[in-house]
Amino acid sequence: MSEQFGELRPPLRVLMGPGPSNTHPRVLAALGAPTIGHLDPAYLEMMNEVSEMLRMVMRTRNRLTFAVSGTGSAGMEAALVNVLEPGDEAVVCINGVFGMRMADIVERCGAAVVPVEVEWGKPVPPQAVAETLKGRGPKVVCLVHAETSTGVLTPPAEIARLARESGALMLLDTVTSLGGCRVEVDAWGVDVCYSGTQKCLSCPPGLAPITFSERALEVVRSRRSKVQSWYLDLTGLERYWGAERVYHHTAPVNMTYGLREALRIVLEEGLEERWERHARVHKMLVEGLAEMGLELLPDGPFRLPMLNAVKVPEGVDEAKVRTALLERFGIEIGAGLGPLKGRIWRVGLMGHTATEANVAYLLHALGQLL
Amino acid sequence: MSEQFGELRPPLRVLMGPGPSNTHPRVLAALGAPTIGHLDPAYLEMMNEVSEMLRMVMRTRNRLTFAVSGTGSAGMEAALVNVLEPGDEAVVCINGVFGMRMADIVERCGAAVVPVEVEWGKPVPPQAVAETLKGRGPKVVCLVHAETSTGVLTPPAEIARLARESGALMLLDTVTSLGGCRVEVDAWGVDVCYSGTQKCLSCPPGLAPITFSERALEVVRSRRSKVQSWYLDLTGLERYWGAERVYHHTAPVNMTYGLREALRIVLEEGLEERWERHARVHKMLVEGLAEMGLELLPDGPFRLPMLNAVKVPEGVDEAKVRTALLERFGIEIGAGLGPLKGRIWRVGLMGHTATEANVAYLLHALGQLL
Repeated sequence: MSEQFGELRPPLRVLMGPGPSNTHPRVLAALGAPTIGHLDPAYLEMMNEVSEMLRMVMRTRNRLTFAVSGTGSAGMEAALVNVLEPGDEAVVCINGVFGMRMADIVERCGAAVVPVEVEWGKPVPPQAVAETLKGRGPKVVCLVHAETSTGVLTPPAEIARLARESGALMLLDTVTSLGGCRVEVDAWGVDVCYSGTQKCLSCPPGLAPITFSERALEVVRSRRSKVQSWYLDLTGLERYWGAERVYHHTAPVNMTYGLREALRIVLEEGLEERWERHARVHKMLVEGLAEMGLELLPDGPFRLPMLNAVKVPEGVDEAKVRTALLERFGIEIGAGLGPLKGRIWRVGLMGHTATEANVAYLLHALGQLL
Repeated sequence: MSEQFGELRPPLRVLMGPGPSNTHPRVLAALGAPTIGHLDPAYLEMMNEVSEMLRMVMRTRNRLTFAVSGTGSAGMEAALVNVLEPGDEAVVCINGVFGMRMADIVERCGAAVVPVEVEWGKPVPPQAVAETLKGRGPKVVCLVHAETSTGVLTPPAEIARLARESGALMLLDTVTSLGGCRVEVDAWGVDVCYSGTQKCLSCPPGLAPITFSERALEVVRSRRSKVQSWYLDLTGLERYWGAERVYHHTAPVNMTYGLREALRIVLEEGLEERWERHARVHKMLVEGLAEMGLELLPDGPFRLPMLNAVKVPEGVDEAKVRTALLERFGIEIGAGLGPLKGRIWRVGLMGHTATEANVAYLLHALGQLL
């Protein structure tokens, strides 16, 4: 009965899509360390270490900084369901798929979405947020720092300032940016920030780093209703990750091993050095693509180093190129989503994958195919 | 800055608590296989294999059988939020912590809980469910097959029949039982069934196997409102796990490797053989404990083989014994929860941990300590 399911043999890939990136070999080794209990003193110590390293990587002193037991989208949901209640209002900046996903979740919380809609491929202009905020007092302003669907970076500091001035919390998605370019939770005045493990941290998908400011926690504590998700309810999670150590759910122990090792690697390299590496490798890619006559979708200053939205040249079958890259070269790149489907390729240079060697190989492969 | 965080060195433990159990070495190796993308053809094939093996292990032909990207509690939430809408009524059998957790989630769905409350340590009597159902037409009847907090097994077939007769869906929690004793989703007439990976499947925590009958899917499809959780919404998950393969969220790739290997191991051993092993090792434990004058909380026929609730003898400091087991012997056992705190130990014999060798070692250690 079991013979039909053969030995596990995943192919070797160069993961240059929108994530996951290639997992660092030390992280792969860490994943396979013997499992211990989620209330074992050794595990509780490890949780402390993960929180402390996440604070360093997210540039925050927030006490409540931990990893949600789900992927980046679970982090998004955890951020929103804890802050929002039915009847609340949320300003959501939408310039791609992940802003739309935020708006969808806001609605599922019974809250009203006030959208700041921006053309896909452009950053969110602070003045558009300022105009939307006029005469309003929303509970939260939501922004995607690095829009994975378009390769666009929106600088968050000014928007966060506007949010604060209006009395709103600032909520920032850094799923794609964390560990690959500057993220400054405290200096920017961000109240809730979440990320994923499988992009520039180069750990497999499965956990979502998250942090809440004391200001955000006050909002959570003064809720009139229970959080609609039991699994993501901060009230319970805080007691497990905090000093009390009360059992909430069984934590994903081996994934925590992986994240701990991934964070160690980030700190060993140094955050600034890591950002610089991503910028350098991105530059090499952009120059190489330009020589082949290929252009990026976003304007120069708003390009993400770790996610490059490359315009598909006229007359090229984009899916055919992606398939050939995968089958002939073992390289994964991503397709466009939504209105950008068929119009762009998404080339990730994230974490362990962001190397000159990989860029050279991709340029070589594209040269063969185009 | 990073020197303070040393190399990953989890202690070696014999995990005889309420879960996680010891991960099988082949599963640990699988976790560390190179990551591939969540839309890679090789990964999609792996998802098919996981679904197929889960059908075998859960004894169901349900098309929609997959793994939720979260731990067992996320499975519970996924089961409930998809089926329930505000204003619905749910009969929830409560004879321990996990029945209470179900009731909590039902309320967060805006649905009304009709509890069937049973003394902790006792199974749920079908006649109590029958009486509760009289004159009612709830949307769902919820039952915990193996109540991890009390070591009690409730036979589900009769309760499932009553649920069907009343027009309700039957929802069953098999987090602790799946892979360790008989679970028959189709033969029992269960409509929604979920589990966890870290108990009798001996994979680390992080995924929740789940299955929905066509009858349950009809209920989901005829909802008036959106599912309150985006992350757990079947509408999206079905399109990713089904033939369409539309991106929903980035799947936890390496955890899927682990689950795939864990399921292969279960099928290699054989389900019936595995249940028999759990029963045999449980018998050895019970007899060994009896020789030391230790008793179990539940009555004989309702004892779970994989989770043994052992009464703490008068005058014994239960926490001291647990700590000594961990520190001197490297054995983890669990404490009592809620009203059973301080009154029982919870000794798990799950999956890879359920061996004569481990029982002999635990009996030896307890003999030294008591």
